Amino acid sequence: MKRTVYLISGPAGAGKSTTSRKIAEILEKSAYIEGDFINHMVVGGHEKPWLSETHLNLIWLNMLSLTRNYLVNDYDVIIDYYVTYSDKTNYMLEALKDFNIDIKFIVLLVDKDELLRRDSQRPVEDQMGERCIIGLNEIIASNPPERHIMNTTQTDIEQVVDDILRNPKYLLNPLS
Amino acid sequence: MKRTVYLISGPAGAGKSTTSRKIAEILEKSAYIEGDFINHMVVGGHEKPWLSETHLNLIWLNMLSLTRNYLVNDYDVIIDYYVTYSDKTNYMLEALKDFNIDIKFIVLLVDKDELLRRDSQRPVEDQMGERCIIGLNEIIASNPPERHIMNTTQTDIEQVVDDILRNPKYLLNPLS
Repeated sequence: MKRTVYLISGPAGAGKSTTSRKIAEILEKSAYIEGDFINHMVVGGHEKPWLSETHLNLIWLNMLSLTRNYLVNDYDVIIDYYVTYSDKTNYMLEALKDFNIDIKFIVLLVDKDELLRRDSQRPVEDQMGERCIIGLNEIIASNPPERHIMNTTQTDIEQVVDDILRNPKYLLNPLS
Repeated sequence: MKRTVYLISGPAGAGKSTTSRKIAEILEKSAYIEGDFINHMVVGGHEKPWLSETHLNLIWLNMLSLTRNYLVNDYDVIIDYYVTYSDKTNYMLEALKDFNIDIKFIVLLVDKDELLRRDSQRPVEDQMGERCIIGLNEIIASNPPERHIMNTTQTDIEQVVDDILRNPKYLLNPLS
């Protein structure tokens, strides 16, 4: 059976982890890779990935190694991370081109007010405040094609997940 | 600089994660790999690793891939998992023999009463009850050499960590 890698992107607060976990729970054989957790495996000498390209590259190398292992063992893979278009989408397309798989890329967006509302509902130590908006603006500025964007402000999670699973518009085209 | 991979084993409740995190925090460049977390990356089709050899092997393959990536990038690596002697210690020795590194193997043990006391202090949903003791007995039955065993019942965490970092007796000999 043809396997799928789902790249679930979006700013903090857009619902990446809830959505990713739901997708993983629906699929028969699935692995859910949380980029934030991979990031925090580094303890001594940890650097913020948005300040260190070396560290960011190591996170992606690790996510790629895990993805390859899961694909070889016939799992679908859901990667929940701040996937930027088109550098990281191209990195994954290139690195996984030997596998006969589909790669879907989804950018979850929510309106600014909703993003700040969700952020304010987190435990205080996890609140990001204005940094949510910076993330939102950066993702919009990276200019992902419209068909990969899903605004979830008014949409419930079941609909979001169903659309990601069924809708072929999220497929990334192979690199030519 | 010669890097070290620390394999931190022991039954649930022996202090693997606290000890591993402390070691990681002391080392200048370190990565802390929690086996339990790698285990739970699989969501759809998850099997308990003690009931499925395929699943257990996949966990080890993933921990190995991550370890290799970290070593290439010059990190010490701490693996916190139920590492059995000598199958998994040999697996790591063999798989990492191309690296000029040290591998330390430590089995943390505590007395049964203390193990049950610690278990009773966890949140109810995380309590393992008698399964702690089954784990303890299995590890003793796998017969790790005495020098790799550290009974932490009476020892405080700083001493445990210091001993693991400094004492060469925990080194695994290279496979010949």
